[in-house]
Amino acid sequence: MPSYKAPVEDVQFLLNDVFRIDRYSNLPGFSDASPDVVEAILGEAAKFCEHVLTPLNRVGDKEGCKRQSDGSVTTPTGFKDAFRQIVEGGWIGMSAPAEFGGQGLPMIMTQIVNEFLCSANMAFAMYPGLTQGAIAALIAHGSAEQKALYLPKMIAGEWTGTMNLTEPHCGTDLGLLRTRAVKQPDGSYKITGTKIFISAGEHDLADNIIHLVLARIEGAPEGTRGISLFVAPKMLPKPDGSPGARNAVTCGSLEEKMGIHGNSTCVMNYDGATGWLLGEENRGLPAMFTMMNEARLGVGVQGLSQSEVAYQNAVAYAKERLQGRALSGAKFKDKPADPIIVHPDVRRTLMTIKSFNEAARALVVWTAIASDLHHRSEDEKTRQAADDHMGLLTPVIKGVLTDTGFANTVMAQQMFGGHGYIVEHGMEQFVRDARIAMLYEGANGIQALDLVGRKLPKDGGRALQAFFAEVQGFIKEHAADAAMKPYVEPVGKALGHLQQATMWFMANAMTKPDNAGAGSTDYMHMFGLVALGYMWARMAVAASEKLKADAADARMSAKLVTGRFFMDRMLPETAAQLARISSGAGSTMELPAEAF
Amino acid sequence: MPSYKAPVEDVQFLLNDVFRIDRYSNLPGFSDASPDVVEAILGEAAKFCEHVLTPLNRVGDKEGCKRQSDGSVTTPTGFKDAFRQIVEGGWIGMSAPAEFGGQGLPMIMTQIVNEFLCSANMAFAMYPGLTQGAIAALIAHGSAEQKALYLPKMIAGEWTGTMNLTEPHCGTDLGLLRTRAVKQPDGSYKITGTKIFISAGEHDLADNIIHLVLARIEGAPEGTRGISLFVAPKMLPKPDGSPGARNAVTCGSLEEKMGIHGNSTCVMNYDGATGWLLGEENRGLPAMFTMMNEARLGVGVQGLSQSEVAYQNAVAYAKERLQGRALSGAKFKDKPADPIIVHPDVRRTLMTIKSFNEAARALVVWTAIASDLHHRSEDEKTRQAADDHMGLLTPVIKGVLTDTGFANTVMAQQMFGGHGYIVEHGMEQFVRDARIAMLYEGANGIQALDLVGRKLPKDGGRALQAFFAEVQGFIKEHAADAAMKPYVEPVGKALGHLQQATMWFMANAMTKPDNAGAGSTDYMHMFGLVALGYMWARMAVAASEKLKADAADARMSAKLVTGRFFMDRMLPETAAQLARISSGAGSTMELPAEAF
Repeated sequence: MPSYKAPVEDVQFLLNDVFRIDRYSNLPGFSDASPDVVEAILGEAAKFCEHVLTPLNRVGDKEGCKRQSDGSVTTPTGFKDAFRQIVEGGWIGMSAPAEFGGQGLPMIMTQIVNEFLCSANMAFAMYPGLTQGAIAALIAHGSAEQKALYLPKMIAGEWTGTMNLTEPHCGTDLGLLRTRAVKQPDGSYKITGTKIFISAGEHDLADNIIHLVLARIEGAPEGTRGISLFVAPKMLPKPDGSPGARNAVTCGSLEEKMGIHGNSTCVMNYDGATGWLLGEENRGLPAMFTMMNEARLGVGVQGLSQSEVAYQNAVAYAKERLQGRALSGAKFKDKPADPIIVHPDVRRTLMTIKSFNEAARALVVWTAIASDLHHRSEDEKTRQAADDHMGLLTPVIKGVLTDTGFANTVMAQQMFGGHGYIVEHGMEQFVRDARIAMLYEGANGIQALDLVGRKLPKDGGRALQAFFAEVQGFIKEHAADAAMKPYVEPVGKALGHLQQATMWFMANAMTKPDNAGAGSTDYMHMFGLVALGYMWARMAVAASEKLKADAADARMSAKLVTGRFFMDRMLPETAAQLARISSGAGSTMELPAEAF
Repeated sequence: MPSYKAPVEDVQFLLNDVFRIDRYSNLPGFSDASPDVVEAILGEAAKFCEHVLTPLNRVGDKEGCKRQSDGSVTTPTGFKDAFRQIVEGGWIGMSAPAEFGGQGLPMIMTQIVNEFLCSANMAFAMYPGLTQGAIAALIAHGSAEQKALYLPKMIAGEWTGTMNLTEPHCGTDLGLLRTRAVKQPDGSYKITGTKIFISAGEHDLADNIIHLVLARIEGAPEGTRGISLFVAPKMLPKPDGSPGARNAVTCGSLEEKMGIHGNSTCVMNYDGATGWLLGEENRGLPAMFTMMNEARLGVGVQGLSQSEVAYQNAVAYAKERLQGRALSGAKFKDKPADPIIVHPDVRRTLMTIKSFNEAARALVVWTAIASDLHHRSEDEKTRQAADDHMGLLTPVIKGVLTDTGFANTVMAQQMFGGHGYIVEHGMEQFVRDARIAMLYEGANGIQALDLVGRKLPKDGGRALQAFFAEVQGFIKEHAADAAMKPYVEPVGKALGHLQQATMWFMANAMTKPDNAGAGSTDYMHMFGLVALGYMWARMAVAASEKLKADAADARMSAKLVTGRFFMDRMLPETAAQLARISSGAGSTMELPAEAF
C-alpha cells in the first residue's frame, strides 16, 4: 500500500527563502500568510492528505463510481466523509474572496495544497478542484445576483461545480460545437445537447451541482464567435437559494477509463435544461479562456503531484529491496544483498525524478505568485508583467509538468521491477492516473501550439523578452560567484539554445508555419528545461545563503547536489531539441496521408 | 474497437531486398523458406492474427483469467478455440527441429510471426511464446529421454511450457533463491518453494504444463553457483507418455496486474513436487542464460508489436477525426474541419513511431538471422560472429524496443485526445500491455548493465569491434553516393558519439565502475539509435535500388522520407546522451540515502 508525506519543508524553503513572499505582505491576503500561519495551514493539509485521502486512493481506483438506474452516481466508499472534511476545513474557498465566505489567502496556498491533495488522491481532489474552477468563472463573469446566489454555497463546498465544453465530435476545436440554447420569455435559456468527459458531472457529495456549459444561442454565428457560456444548476435554486426542482440535465452514462476511477466522468445530457447566460452573448469562449491559465496551472500541478508520490514510494522501495551488490563492492555485508539504492542506474532514476519535482514545484510557486500579483497588485505594470508571465508559462507548465510527471511515474514504477506491474503496490495506479493530465484541459500538443503560435508572438514578444531578460539578469548577477558557476553557466547555455530556436522560428516559420508546428513540442520542452534550470539556479543561491548560516543543513546541501544533477543530466537535452527544431518540417510533412 | 493489419509487405522487403535471405539457402531450413513459401506463411499468419486474435484482445483484457476454487485457471472466452487454431496451424513448432515434429523453418520466421501474434493479442501470444522458450531449453539441455518425452508434445502444442525463476524476495539477483530440491532414490527430486510471476503457470489450454524451474539442491553452494534447473510437469507422464498423476505443483493465486490480463500470471507453490534435473547439477543459471538471448529478443519484439498496433490505430484516427484547420490553410474546405493528420505535431508523432517501427523490425530480422546462423551455419567463424552479434544486440533490442515501444503506445494514445483515455477505444490497453515488457526478462536497467558491464568488455571487445567495423564499412562503401549522404552521414556522426562514449567508459569506468552504471541506460539507448540508424541506411540503399527499377513505387519513396525523418529527428539525441554519460557518476552518487 503506497504512502505519502506532503513536502511541507520544501514548500517553506520556496516561500520563505527562494521567493521570499514576505515581500508581498502589502497585498491583500498576503499579510494573513505569515510563515507561522503558512506552517499551520500546510501542516493541517498534510495531515488530512496523508491520513484521510491517501488510504482512499486505492479504494477509489478499485471501486470506481457507479451510476445507478435513476441516473444518480455513487462515489467510492469513504469519499463522502472525506469531502465533508474538505468542506469543514474550508479548503475549497481558501483563496476565494472573503465577501463570499472565502479566506482570501493567496492563490499560492491553494496551488500548494492542491499538489498535496492530488498526490494523496488525484481522483478525489478533482471534485473540489473543479469547483474552484467554476468559482473563478463566476467571480470573473457572474452578475451580482449570480454571485450572491452561487458563490457562498460553492465556496463553502455545499455545492460543487463543473465545466461542460467537450462534445463527442469536438474537443480542441470548440468552434464545431452543437449544443444549442433557446431564449425564454423570462430571460433564461433552454439548453439542449450532449456533453462528454464531464468530470464530477454527477455524484453524491453535495446537494447541488452547478454546471457551466458552452452552447450556441439560436441564430448565433457559426464557429467560435457564436458560443455563449451558461450556468445550469442540477437543482434549480428556489427564491431562498435552497435547491429546488430537478433541472433537465442528467448523467447519461459514466465513461470507463484508464484511471482516475474515483472521479465520475460523465456524459451529460441537456434536454431543454434551464440555464442563464454567464457574461455576454457569444463571448463564451473568451470567458472560458480567462480561467484557462489557472485551470491549466492546476493540471500541471497534477503532473507534479503524481511524480512526487510515485517518487516517494520508489525511494522507500529502493531503500528496502535487497538485490545484488554495489558495483564498487558490497555496502551491507551483513545482509544477503545491498538495497537497490546503491545501484547507479537506480540512483540516476531517482535523481532524475527528484531534480524535476523540486524545480517543478518552484516553477508552480513562482507562477502562482504571478497569478496573485495579477489579481491583487495595485500597480498596473506589475499586473501586466504578472499576466504576461502567466500567459507564457501556463502552456509550459501544463505540457511539461504533465508529460514529464507521467514519464516519472513510469520510471518510479520501473524501480519495483515486476512488482511495479502488480496492482497491490499501487505504482501502476499512479501511472494510469497521471496519464489523463497530458490529455485534458487541452492535449499537450495544443499547449505546444499555444506557446509557439500565440504566446511567443503576443504583444510583439513582450512576455518572452521579459522572461529572457529575467534569466539573463540573474545569470549576470551571479556570474562572478564561483560557487554559482556550476548552475548559472549551464542555464546560460540552455537559454542560448532556446534563443536560437526562437530566432529559427522567426526566420523560418513566418512564411511556412509548419516549421513552427513541427518544432512546437520540442520547443515547449526546451522552454521547460530552461525554466526549471532557472529555478534550480535560484534555489542554489538560496540554499548557499542558508548554508552560510548553518553549514550542517543537510537539506540545503542536498539541494546543491540535486541542482548539479539537473545541470549534468537534464539540461544537455536542449542541444538535441535545438537540432530537431532546426531540421524543419521537411521530412515531417512530406509523406502523403496514404503513406501512413 | 482497434484493428490490426500485419505488415506483411514490410517484412518481405526486409527479407528479400534488405537482408536477401536467399543468400542463406544452403543452410538447413532456409531452402524451405523461398519467397513464395514465406509469402504464403505470412499471409496465413496475418489472417489468423487479424481475424481471430485481434477481436479477442479486448475480451481478454476485460475478462482476464480466473482461478477456480480447485486451483484450476480459466482463460478468457475464445482463448481455447484460438489456441486450438495455433496448434492446428503448427505455429508453435514452426522453427523447431523436424525430428521432433517441427517444421525446421528459420528462426526469423518465428520472430516475425510472433510480432504479428503479439500485435494482435499480446496476452494470448505469451502462451505459445513461453512454450517456445521451454522447447529451446529442452533442446539445449535435455537428455535424449527428456527430449523424446516432452518435445513432440510441446512442439505440437498439446503441452505448454513455463519458466519458473522469480521468488518473492529475488528476481534480478537469483543467487538469493530459496526453492530447494531433494534428491530421491529413483534419481528424481522433490522440489519445494514458492515461485511468483509465472506467466501461463496454470490454464485450461493444454493437457499438460511443463514447468522449468530453478532450485537449489540440498547441500549445494550458496549464491548463483548452487542453482540447478529442473523439469517438473503439472501431470506426471505415464510410461506411455500420456499425462498421469497430478504433481504437487499448483497455482496458489493469480496476480492482479496493470495489463496482459488475458495471460495467467501465477504464484506457483511447489510442495515437494517431483522434478528431474535438466542439464548438470549447479549449472542451472548458465543453462537458463543460453536461452536468454532468444527470450529477450522475443520480449523486444513485444515492444515493437504494441508500438505497431498502436501506431496503426492512431493513423486511422488521425485520418478520420476532424478538428481544426491546417496551419498552411484549410485542406478540406468542404468539411467542417480538417482531419488532424494535417497538423505538423500529429505528423511528427506518427512519423516518430513509424520511423522507429520499421527500423526496429529490421533490427529484429537482422538479429534473428544471426540466431539462425549461430545455430545452423557449418562455418565456425560465422557461428561465432553470429553469437557475438546476438550477445551484443540482445540487451539493446530488449531494452530499447520495449522502452521506446511503450513510449510510442503513449504517443499513439495521445493522438486520440481525451478519447485515448477511454477503455472502449483500446489505446490505453496497448499502453498497459506494453508496460510489462520493460519489466520482465530482466528489467531494462539490467539490460543496460548487461550491455555495458558484460557485453562490451567480453572477449576483449570483439563483438563491439565487429559491430563498429560493419557500420563503418557500410558508411565507407556508400560515402561517395550523393543520394545516400543524408543517411550515412548522420549515422556516421551518431556512431562517432557511440565510440566516444565507449572510450569514455574505458578511460573512466575501470577504476570507478559507478561511472559506467550511471551512464548505462543512456549508452544502451544511444546504441539503439545507432543500430536503428544503420538499419535505416541499409533500408535506404535497398529502397533506392528498387526505385531504380520502378520509380513509381510509393512504398519505397516513403521509406526514403521516413529514413530522413529518423536522421532529422531521432539521431540528434545521441549528442545529449554523450553529454550525460560524460558527466560521470558524481552528482548521481553523491547524496546519502537519507537525502532521498
